Amino acid sequence: MKRTIHLLVALLLCGQCLLAQEYTSRTLSLMPWPQEVHKAPGKLVIDSSFSVSVSSKKGRVYQKAVNLIRSITDRTGVFVNRGFPRIQQSSTVTIQFDEVAVLGEKIDESYELSVSTAGAIIKAKTDVGALHGMETLLQLLQFDEHSFYIPGIRIKDAPRFAWRGLMIDVARHFQPMAVLKRNLRAMAALKMNVFHWHLSDDQGFRVASKVFPKLQELASDGQYYTQREVKELVAYAGSLGIRVVPEIDVPGHATAILTAYPEYGSKKGESYTIERYAGVFDPTLNPANPEVYSFLATLFKEVSSLFPDPYFHIGGDENEGKHWDQNVEIQQLKKKHGWTTNHEVQTYFNIQLEAILKSYGKKLMGWDEIMTKDMPTSAIIHSWRGRNEGFPNGTLIEAVKKGYQVVLSNDYYIDRMQSVLHHRKFDPLKNGALTAAQEALVLGGEVTMWSELVTPLTIDSRIWPRTAGIAELFWSKAEVVDDPNFISRLKTMDLYLDQMGITHRKNKDQILRNITKSSTVASVQLLTEYFEPLKIYERNKDGVEYKSFSPFTLFADACTADAYGALELNTLIDEYLKFGKERTKKEIIAILKRWQRGYQAFKSLAPNPNLVCLTEHYKAMALIGERLEKALSNTVALRDDVALRTTIKKLETPLVDTEFMVLPSLKRLFGHLGVALAEGGKKS
Amino acid sequence: MKRTIHLLVALLLCGQCLLAQEYTSRTLSLMPWPQEVHKAPGKLVIDSSFSVSVSSKKGRVYQKAVNLIRSITDRTGVFVNRGFPRIQQSSTVTIQFDEVAVLGEKIDESYELSVSTAGAIIKAKTDVGALHGMETLLQLLQFDEHSFYIPGIRIKDAPRFAWRGLMIDVARHFQPMAVLKRNLRAMAALKMNVFHWHLSDDQGFRVASKVFPKLQELASDGQYYTQREVKELVAYAGSLGIRVVPEIDVPGHATAILTAYPEYGSKKGESYTIERYAGVFDPTLNPANPEVYSFLATLFKEVSSLFPDPYFHIGGDENEGKHWDQNVEIQQLKKKHGWTTNHEVQTYFNIQLEAILKSYGKKLMGWDEIMTKDMPTSAIIHSWRGRNEGFPNGTLIEAVKKGYQVVLSNDYYIDRMQSVLHHRKFDPLKNGALTAAQEALVLGGEVTMWSELVTPLTIDSRIWPRTAGIAELFWSKAEVVDDPNFISRLKTMDLYLDQMGITHRKNKDQILRNITKSSTVASVQLLTEYFEPLKIYERNKDGVEYKSFSPFTLFADACTADAYGALELNTLIDEYLKFGKERTKKEIIAILKRWQRGYQAFKSLAPNPNLVCLTEHYKAMALIGERLEKALSNTVALRDDVALRTTIKKLETPLVDTEFMVLPSLKRLFGHLGVALAEGGKKS
Repeated sequence: MKRTIHLLVALLLCGQCLLAQEYTSRTLSLMPWPQEVHKAPGKLVIDSSFSVSVSSKKGRVYQKAVNLIRSITDRTGVFVNRGFPRIQQSSTVTIQFDEVAVLGEKIDESYELSVSTAGAIIKAKTDVGALHGMETLLQLLQFDEHSFYIPGIRIKDAPRFAWRGLMIDVARHFQPMAVLKRNLRAMAALKMNVFHWHLSDDQGFRVASKVFPKLQELASDGQYYTQREVKELVAYAGSLGIRVVPEIDVPGHATAILTAYPEYGSKKGESYTIERYAGVFDPTLNPANPEVYSFLATLFKEVSSLFPDPYFHIGGDENEGKHWDQNVEIQQLKKKHGWTTNHEVQTYFNIQLEAILKSYGKKLMGWDEIMTKDMPTSAIIHSWRGRNEGFPNGTLIEAVKKGYQVVLSNDYYIDRMQSVLHHRKFDPLKNGALTAAQEALVLGGEVTMWSELVTPLTIDSRIWPRTAGIAELFWSKAEVVDDPNFISRLKTMDLYLDQMGITHRKNKDQILRNITKSSTVASVQLLTEYFEPLKIYERNKDGVEYKSFSPFTLFADACTADAYGALELNTLIDEYLKFGKERTKKEIIAILKRWQRGYQAFKSLAPNPNLVCLTEHYKAMALIGERLEKALSNTVALRDDVALRTTIKKLETPLVDTEFMVLPSLKRLFGHLGVALAEGGKKS
Repeated sequence: MKRTIHLLVALLLCGQCLLAQEYTSRTLSLMPWPQEVHKAPGKLVIDSSFSVSVSSKKGRVYQKAVNLIRSITDRTGVFVNRGFPRIQQSSTVTIQFDEVAVLGEKIDESYELSVSTAGAIIKAKTDVGALHGMETLLQLLQFDEHSFYIPGIRIKDAPRFAWRGLMIDVARHFQPMAVLKRNLRAMAALKMNVFHWHLSDDQGFRVASKVFPKLQELASDGQYYTQREVKELVAYAGSLGIRVVPEIDVPGHATAILTAYPEYGSKKGESYTIERYAGVFDPTLNPANPEVYSFLATLFKEVSSLFPDPYFHIGGDENEGKHWDQNVEIQQLKKKHGWTTNHEVQTYFNIQLEAILKSYGKKLMGWDEIMTKDMPTSAIIHSWRGRNEGFPNGTLIEAVKKGYQVVLSNDYYIDRMQSVLHHRKFDPLKNGALTAAQEALVLGGEVTMWSELVTPLTIDSRIWPRTAGIAELFWSKAEVVDDPNFISRLKTMDLYLDQMGITHRKNKDQILRNITKSSTVASVQLLTEYFEPLKIYERNKDGVEYKSFSPFTLFADACTADAYGALELNTLIDEYLKFGKERTKKEIIAILKRWQRGYQAFKSLAPNPNLVCLTEHYKAMALIGERLEKALSNTVALRDDVALRTTIKKLETPLVDTEFMVLPSLKRLFGHLGVALAEGGKKS
């Protein structure tokens, strides 16, 4: 029913294109969904004669063509005769582009792709457009029992937004080069084009400075990027068509900077140390100290010179100014200028940074706190605050109305561990009625991966596959959010990312082996199908539980948002309650039996403290499973008794920082079976 | 029975120490097994007060102490209060060392470790010895349902051999820095101390030269290490107490070098191209051309300057001299010197390299072909040839008798995909009766990982866990090979390596998901429990099947040596035929039932060409399973019929480059059940 409604809505919105889309999004798992998709006759079968030709060795296409051949052979097992691309020779796949794009400003990213039995042709104005076409081709790979092939198709495609970003916070937990590189490859596969590198925060300063070496020596625990590594990453991203925007967060989130250079702090004589907890902290640069500006001018000159991109992010968020209120110089400065709020002080601070950056040919970008009176509209506003920060409509509309260019990140905070379906509800342009001129100021969106609870072991599982579903918002037509086949496409993308070397699946298994101290993880794996990490910062509430060196190899770290088991069961119960089909009931019963078998297997594992803490919830899940299964199979009617109530109470409580995602559905099923239970438990 | 015999032999050999060893190797999974292990009272429980203190921040210990704390918290889930080591303060773990070792020559690697309820103390003369003690401490972590702890113990330990090496061939398939670094960490965990870096071969030249840039520009497909990366890896290895010995293979295996600089080849006017196949090829440097020596002198000067180690490996193997025979200058050279063989030519060549390297303060090391008349005994012989190369007793004895220092690699060729139990049969000193003086010339052993069929995706599963079992030969007492608990210790080490981030397990699952195009891999996983890759170069026979860019994501790449399922079933059938216990029979029946269920599950997977090719063998396995299961449970007597014979014939044939490892045992079981089958099938 829900699906049907979606489909109708979709058809109403845009019959023609969505007919095409609907027609193929069942069979093709493209993501982001292209602007125009048309079926064409025939199919291109992959065999040993598979070959690739590029129109020029210049630019980004040749290396990507090598990788395309490797990807096709790795995924099909076909032994190709030609392991390297040819230049302008007739081949199975022909790639043509006119010019090599210079990243940094809006460029032509469009491409056309056509596939027939004879071969595939990709045409693009720029090499970056051609890269997108190649990613689409790779996603088109299909199979049957006889062969792997690419179906006949005609695609015309171009992005909806110019800014399709992912921010990674490498300050709270350092992320090695290899982690960043593989995530850049995944970004490219999803046609994302901006990597926002959050390089400094209270917990660490991560880029080496030659002018201020104490920054990495005293404020990084030895975990930082050398300038050569920064250049290497920028070049690597560039080869994938991805821009890199650095962020040095000031004047707040500056504990690391002040650990190295306390003299620039707002609290006289204070000695600072690297922050180990998560939260908002007081150490702040001193806006009344002229040396702070020469320090930043020198530092920004050095750091910004490593990045060809015109944008430079100064952070500017979450400065509560406590240390400012205690600082005499700053009070005098306020009096002198007749300022009443610290916002005015921060504007004074930001405006000077804006001038400094402009002198280096850089545009200042900052979190939306920088949008204060007198802030020049040349600054780019990074809109992050929303409902939870007291801005019911977010800050984007205010920004564009004031004439600022905006990048939207509010509602794309994936560290909140919410469902991708939640994030997909928020279209960068749907936040309110905007004029065409105002819409033009919305550059696009950016997914933010804050890393207080995220390590190299788990970061991929926090970013992917959810970010694929959000990236689609940034590239495809707005109506794509109504695609009823989205979850099935996401599951395909999930496996595709796994095949690319993204570690969301394989590191999960590693964590489960570590928890069970065995290779027999199926029973705990089953548990992770129905439990998800606590959401919206309920895990590590107020930042008091986890330090940066606490273990992140726990059950909650093996669990993810959008647990497929929960999605499946919730849907099945929905359908069963609506249509009461016998087949649906059988499927539900099968799952409930699996819970009981899972608990039996779980009990046979050698107990250790990290398993013991799971026992009570697993037992409760198995009990509920048994009661419901018997009731559904009409062997024993469901009775509302103390045992049932206690079991449910247990499942309403968090399980080591995770929550049981099917309780509301189960309760509705109880109701259907004659046991009415007061609503409760977390909403999914 | 076999185990009992082992135990008896062991006891006879060395009652005292093995009593101790036997006493604890059941309960402790240390590898390599220390020289002296004594139980002590109490146990050190890991809780939030866990802390580490080091005697000095100098040298290698401090950083390792940080990693030790991370490893303990990650594996226990305990939230410790102190995330970083202290200096000379009372702590749970106290680490003391007298001096910072300089790698490159024989150094003191001994340590003492004692653990009691009060804490753990590690004492060593050098920081490298302390590192070994810390690795042992990490391996001692135990658990019960209440806590994680380290048992009371007293250990005195030191290596048996000074050279405990692993060679990785990065020429046939390039291995990125991250792959090498994680394998170096695993080497350190096994107390290995020499990384032999095979940097050049016919298929690629992998280190950047500033003097001869064409080497990386024309002969690496863009896959090479910059000089900064080489220095970074050498420093990283050094921080782990591991030396790095580079190899530039000459005069043969030189196709890559000659692709860049054909003028130094033995064939006039020949234009060479990077080799894509595996094997022994003809392109060879020209020993009669004086410019070849100045080229090598310059290249070796540049490359050797990147490596502090005194050893420099020149290869020198498998030169058949075909191009030499066709070269007039070389014929004249032979005539002039009155040489009759190409060996004499190669000696002439090697002797000049020896002098060149000596002038740079380097010792020449080469594969055992360099051991020709007139070769100075200052050269180190790398003994690799054995039975299969026409040297029934290997070349080690001949070398030490001639007075050369030797490193043994024959019998440690893990690319032959044989069982670790095979490799463990070969003690570096057991190859023949040697005098004490001769034994002193045996520096140790080196495991060789040739990479014709090995990519970054699979290399960990080829090296580990087998290399752990071989590393034990290099460190522990010779009698350790008799330990009946070895396989169970190996399985623990297998999981420990997985927790360290070694990818042998997780990449296997990735390959299986790629083959099945699904997340439901259990049925194919089951198959990999009984099939192993073809051994001793039967896969890619004569190097004609696989090119370097062929897919290595196939079923054979998911399979490994020492398939645990096969090991288990072979042992069970052994025991059943010997003792006929009912319990053993039940376990066998359970396995045979699993085969049948596995095949059913397999059939429900969406077929693709890489699954279809597995069907017939899986079907045969399920059929045999059914027949045997029924016979063992006395439901249907086993009859010798055509169906059975055909099924067995099928299982005797390779399955896409793998073989069925339990057929000989099954045949013995057939015999026991009244069906005598002519022996056949591969030996396991």
